[in-house]
Amino acid sequence: MSSRFLSTLTRAEFTKLLQQFNATPDESIAFSESLDRILAADLTACEDLPAGDRSCMDGYALAAADTFGAGEGNPAYLECRHCIEVNVFPNFSLQPGECAWIPTGGFLPPGADSVVMVEYTHDIGDGTIEVRRSLAPGENLMFRGEDARKGSPLLKRGTRLRVPEMGLLAALGLTQIRVHRRPRVAILSTGDEIVPVEAQPRPGEMRDVNSHAVAAMVMQAGGVVEPLGIVRDDLEALRDALERGLKNSDALLLSGGSSKGTRDHTLDAIAQLPGAQILAHGVAMAPGKPTILARVGAKPILGLPGQVGSAQIVMLVLGQPLVRHLAGDGRAFDESRRSLRRALLTRNVPSSQGREDYLRVRLEETADGLLAHPVMGKSGLLRTLLHSDALLVISAETEGLLEGRPVDVWLI
Amino acid sequence: MSSRFLSTLTRAEFTKLLQQFNATPDESIAFSESLDRILAADLTACEDLPAGDRSCMDGYALAAADTFGAGEGNPAYLECRHCIEVNVFPNFSLQPGECAWIPTGGFLPPGADSVVMVEYTHDIGDGTIEVRRSLAPGENLMFRGEDARKGSPLLKRGTRLRVPEMGLLAALGLTQIRVHRRPRVAILSTGDEIVPVEAQPRPGEMRDVNSHAVAAMVMQAGGVVEPLGIVRDDLEALRDALERGLKNSDALLLSGGSSKGTRDHTLDAIAQLPGAQILAHGVAMAPGKPTILARVGAKPILGLPGQVGSAQIVMLVLGQPLVRHLAGDGRAFDESRRSLRRALLTRNVPSSQGREDYLRVRLEETADGLLAHPVMGKSGLLRTLLHSDALLVISAETEGLLEGRPVDVWLI
Repeated sequence: MSSRFLSTLTRAEFTKLLQQFNATPDESIAFSESLDRILAADLTACEDLPAGDRSCMDGYALAAADTFGAGEGNPAYLECRHCIEVNVFPNFSLQPGECAWIPTGGFLPPGADSVVMVEYTHDIGDGTIEVRRSLAPGENLMFRGEDARKGSPLLKRGTRLRVPEMGLLAALGLTQIRVHRRPRVAILSTGDEIVPVEAQPRPGEMRDVNSHAVAAMVMQAGGVVEPLGIVRDDLEALRDALERGLKNSDALLLSGGSSKGTRDHTLDAIAQLPGAQILAHGVAMAPGKPTILARVGAKPILGLPGQVGSAQIVMLVLGQPLVRHLAGDGRAFDESRRSLRRALLTRNVPSSQGREDYLRVRLEETADGLLAHPVMGKSGLLRTLLHSDALLVISAETEGLLEGRPVDVWLI
Repeated sequence: MSSRFLSTLTRAEFTKLLQQFNATPDESIAFSESLDRILAADLTACEDLPAGDRSCMDGYALAAADTFGAGEGNPAYLECRHCIEVNVFPNFSLQPGECAWIPTGGFLPPGADSVVMVEYTHDIGDGTIEVRRSLAPGENLMFRGEDARKGSPLLKRGTRLRVPEMGLLAALGLTQIRVHRRPRVAILSTGDEIVPVEAQPRPGEMRDVNSHAVAAMVMQAGGVVEPLGIVRDDLEALRDALERGLKNSDALLLSGGSSKGTRDHTLDAIAQLPGAQILAHGVAMAPGKPTILARVGAKPILGLPGQVGSAQIVMLVLGQPLVRHLAGDGRAFDESRRSLRRALLTRNVPSSQGREDYLRVRLEETADGLLAHPVMGKSGLLRTLLHSDALLVISAETEGLLEGRPVDVWLI
């Protein structure tokens, strides 16, 4: 088990290891359940969308050539014989010099190539419409196939389905789609001092915060939680729980005591699992240094620090991206997707070179702009977490930041 | 029905009207289901947290006075007679000149007031520990009650429960909590051209995108969707559907055709409901101008534009905040909660004074920083939505923005 003695990895190296795990298999689901799910196959458009040229406005469909040179002082006069209904494809053609009333969304009749907004027209009676503007062909139209063209690529495998993508699926009638199955993530707390939330702790004991916080963060990232409860700090009990947890899940997250003895226990228990390989034992970030990564067969085990604050930061930086990656998201580790805000730092912040620091900050909107107040506090406390809105990431190359400096903070 | 002829409101006036609706009643739920729910009552701490002074480190608990003046060249020597276990409250007191091994999270024995990190110590055998640092009282401790003090206020009514708040509930054993019921939101599409997603549209018809996009956005905002389906553009059918929808819901969202005739129909149908009052008929934003707000008894009806792009923007700006407000969120309309990023605008953008413009932009990370490319396109198209990552909000006082200008864009 020489791999146990791996040195601490950089955060980038650790992330690369996480990216080597495979996405979950795919399944077929109703598109109405697909928000935030990840496509497991490329999609091709099965029909043209829109199905024909449609109007963007209430107005008159016409041939642009009939309005050339028209203006406020020199209107064109067109004959209006037809009134298009929004739900009926026109069964007539426009002749030169004719126009037809068209509602927003209505389909253009043959012979028309543009729509004039009703505001630029006047119905002077006896079927004659005055048009006080010159139009270009294609004006105020959505063209046939402009959204999607039959047989052409629509959305790529690995795409996260947001509301606009769901709208496209709806418009094309793609009611069943293939997505990656939600990753099932087993969650386990270790520590002889940890009792279930329902219990009254005896002196020396404390309730299990991490299981619940980690579970909520797995759900936020699109995973399904398989709770394994609390396992006492005993090699055999821990190994059995890990084995049981991996059987029914795609990944296992474990948070244990932060003391060195407990961490060694965890490493021993993982090492005893058949096919286990410890990939990383420490990451150069603070908080988060004692984070463990192992592989058992094709499944990852991520060992989180026991301190509640540290565990939540490691979940944000490594755990939630891992869950999204397992769900098939091609951009799971893409840092440019983080929500950032520019703010002014309100005090000097020390930082060590050689590790990435994640500092909690509280934001304050002021007349002078957004201020970022560092929230100092012990990583075992909950209040540090409660009073912060964002994280300031200080790169491993930086040796602290000065008060008054503009910084990009990560909204959490 | 003179209220039908209200003039267009500003977005701020419209928002004020939305804020007048009451939050849903409260219910009791398991805390493990409480992520993103809103507290319906103030919470008070029921015990001290931590329950005693605890160590932040692996090291030795001691009396700081015994280390005064100690340093690298002048260590203090203390006698270690006890080894504290993480889950047991110490049943002894430290005497002067003594220390005790303590793991991270362990409780301090009487007589100790600080912890020295193991890295600053050396076990020289025969029970003597060398301490190479001078400590201040309180160093490396989490104090009893530092997170929460029995009987003192913990979290206020109207607080959204994020992961850190859930952690606090877990730590205090608050397994059942009172939150606002999720708002039930009825969703209805109108328009004779609209067919269900499962159907094959005949020429002139199109599938119902809005119901599904709006439903997804209601769920994102914490609401429960009551789908009413598609109602044909007929006064009586529409009025019956509205009445039915309001019976079982806290609010109703309706998206209809964008043509003026359809909108008038909607207004007529709402006006015929007993106790109906039309509060706004138009809002000075683009897209979104034809948005309708009505009150039927205590319940809001929000009439969205029929164009898919416009409907989604109105949901972001007005609809989702309304759902969060109904769910009891005291900061539902707080614009400072939006995720913003600073980017450089890559082309001139025209804008009319007197209305707020919401322009879709596509973001690009470059060596010169983040660029915001305006996505021009027709609001009836879906591709405009697909290709944008953020919104640029142009205030009603601004008359367009110039290329190269740094702007804050709203990540969506």
